[in-house]
Amino acid sequence: MVGRRQMVGAVGAGLAAAILSGVAPAALQGTGRRARQDGRMGYAIVGLGNYGTRQIMPSFVHSRNARIAALVSGTPAKLERYGAEYDVPTTHRYSYQDFDRIRDNPDIDIVYVVLPVSMHAEYSIRASRAGKHVMCEKPMAMSAVECQSMIDAATAADRQLMIGYRSRFEPNNIHAIALARSGRIGAHRVFDSQHGFAASLQSGWRLDRSMSGGGSMMDIGIYGLNAARYMLGEEPTEVIAMDATDRTDPRFRTVEDRLLSTLRFPSGAVAQLVSSYSSHHNRYRLSGADGFIDADPGTPYEGQRLRLKAGDEDVRDVTRPVGPREQFAGQLDHLPTAIREGRRNIVPGEEGLADIRIIEAMYRSAAERQPVRLA
Amino acid sequence: MVGRRQMVGAVGAGLAAAILSGVAPAALQGTGRRARQDGRMGYAIVGLGNYGTRQIMPSFVHSRNARIAALVSGTPAKLERYGAEYDVPTTHRYSYQDFDRIRDNPDIDIVYVVLPVSMHAEYSIRASRAGKHVMCEKPMAMSAVECQSMIDAATAADRQLMIGYRSRFEPNNIHAIALARSGRIGAHRVFDSQHGFAASLQSGWRLDRSMSGGGSMMDIGIYGLNAARYMLGEEPTEVIAMDATDRTDPRFRTVEDRLLSTLRFPSGAVAQLVSSYSSHHNRYRLSGADGFIDADPGTPYEGQRLRLKAGDEDVRDVTRPVGPREQFAGQLDHLPTAIREGRRNIVPGEEGLADIRIIEAMYRSAAERQPVRLA
Repeated sequence: MVGRRQMVGAVGAGLAAAILSGVAPAALQGTGRRARQDGRMGYAIVGLGNYGTRQIMPSFVHSRNARIAALVSGTPAKLERYGAEYDVPTTHRYSYQDFDRIRDNPDIDIVYVVLPVSMHAEYSIRASRAGKHVMCEKPMAMSAVECQSMIDAATAADRQLMIGYRSRFEPNNIHAIALARSGRIGAHRVFDSQHGFAASLQSGWRLDRSMSGGGSMMDIGIYGLNAARYMLGEEPTEVIAMDATDRTDPRFRTVEDRLLSTLRFPSGAVAQLVSSYSSHHNRYRLSGADGFIDADPGTPYEGQRLRLKAGDEDVRDVTRPVGPREQFAGQLDHLPTAIREGRRNIVPGEEGLADIRIIEAMYRSAAERQPVRLA
Repeated sequence: MVGRRQMVGAVGAGLAAAILSGVAPAALQGTGRRARQDGRMGYAIVGLGNYGTRQIMPSFVHSRNARIAALVSGTPAKLERYGAEYDVPTTHRYSYQDFDRIRDNPDIDIVYVVLPVSMHAEYSIRASRAGKHVMCEKPMAMSAVECQSMIDAATAADRQLMIGYRSRFEPNNIHAIALARSGRIGAHRVFDSQHGFAASLQSGWRLDRSMSGGGSMMDIGIYGLNAARYMLGEEPTEVIAMDATDRTDPRFRTVEDRLLSTLRFPSGAVAQLVSSYSSHHNRYRLSGADGFIDADPGTPYEGQRLRLKAGDEDVRDVTRPVGPREQFAGQLDHLPTAIREGRRNIVPGEEGLADIRIIEAMYRSAAERQPVRLA
């Protein structure tokens, strides 16, 4: 790693003038080729906030197919700091005004959008139009309409679009899905999940609906919703929801605190979800006719625990070993692999759209005080 | 115990003729006095079904204030069998036709109604009118109207009415309530509970609405509802519910399988409950702003496990030691103690009524597909 980084940094530093002229010189293309030869595709990280800098970027060191090729930020000091830390040459550091110039940088294969939700659609679409594959954080966008426009842009560009559902790459969640499909717990009957944390007034854009699209359900409850869908392996047909938000709490002037929802699925299974911005929760359980699969905690950054009850057998700990930052690195590696093998990634835009459509239905159900049918 | 049983049996056997004549002879009154002198009040067990004979009656041996004084059944063979097993003299064995004659038996202080739900109101009211205190199994009755009539009858007779909420006498549930009141988990935010079991076609009257009043929610989901109320210590103001029942399943022709409900409480806390007749569940968790109290399993006959997370402290096992059949014996002992001390028992008819009112609102919400406000 050190060798590669030093090399890229040295090459990059000397290329600033050439890049700024808009010409892609042979040396730069060479950097790209070298990166590809060692099996890594280049990511441009768009947005240098907490999640990007503390979770995503430190995970590249554990990846096999991915490297940080470029940074995009509106804050020059951040570009300076993280550019230096990750040996990203100044030629590969962009402002939002510069953003569309990524088109001309062959080192960038994938654009990872780690921005406030209100900016997901715009930067995903611009990245697709620049001919790049896109990884976009969850929740995918402010609305189902925006999600569809992102899918359309990626399709038009013939590029992949993947949503950052990290749990799909976490060994315990992967094992839980396999157990759910194995039939060991019998016919699926009830999925229940609670997800939440205590938001603070310092939670920034998350508490501003114009940037977040919504409150706890968009940010943390979505893990339970997504888990309901991947554990059950089907799509809900009806939802009812109750909003429980104290609007006098300064945290919740524009976004919901708790959203309690119940979903009906075609198989007859049901899901009940708690989403909260005022209490900590992180668990899910799929109960079948003959047992259950329990993940508690289910979707944290680390420390998942898995339990299986199947018939008379109750194994309180079937937790899988997990490597350092394995779910993050696995997510980063998956898209390059899918691209290289010409396969569709397992959490494409349609997956993000499905969650957003359901969340919109939850909000509508809570507001209209009636069940909402999903097509 | 053996000494007492032998004595009661010997006395009882010789008194049959006198009892049948309707006269309460001195000897019989003497039996009652002896029982009171050793600190035990006499229960008449009404209904010799599974729950009565397998859970309630074997628990008397662990009680301190209670004894089985009489049996009531429509099946002579059961009276014979359990009368012999528990040394209940033939004079103290009643048919349903005989039932009102309990009025004349001073050995009977309390009538424990362990019948199908459809018979709760009738036999509770007749017992009150016979001047007896009443213990009635949950769910209290078929409807809130019936519950109120039971309360009225007990009040008119100046006798106590208690509902068989055994968990209120189980050490872990008692400890969970104390923790909930202690403030250690901060302000209450979310209570979630799942309760259920896989009903079989052999489940008898439970699957016949005309005898049970309803399906899983009346029978097993009520544990979660009751726990929501005793853990939160307040009454819900609004409920929404979804019914998930496959009416082609021969088990569910007249009663619901799963009922999923969400309740809003005055403090701002919410509860989400799963009730099921097609999957096993038995847990609850109260989450506050600073932690949670987790009972998993929460309300089984035995084997409760309790976990406390409070701030940074996560004690995975704060389970309390539990004596044999302690919750059953504690319930049996509580009513005699309350009667003797002139205090109201802690789970009076109003407690059963509160649950039934909420369950009726759940059914209405599911049927009308809208939230229902509770007064």
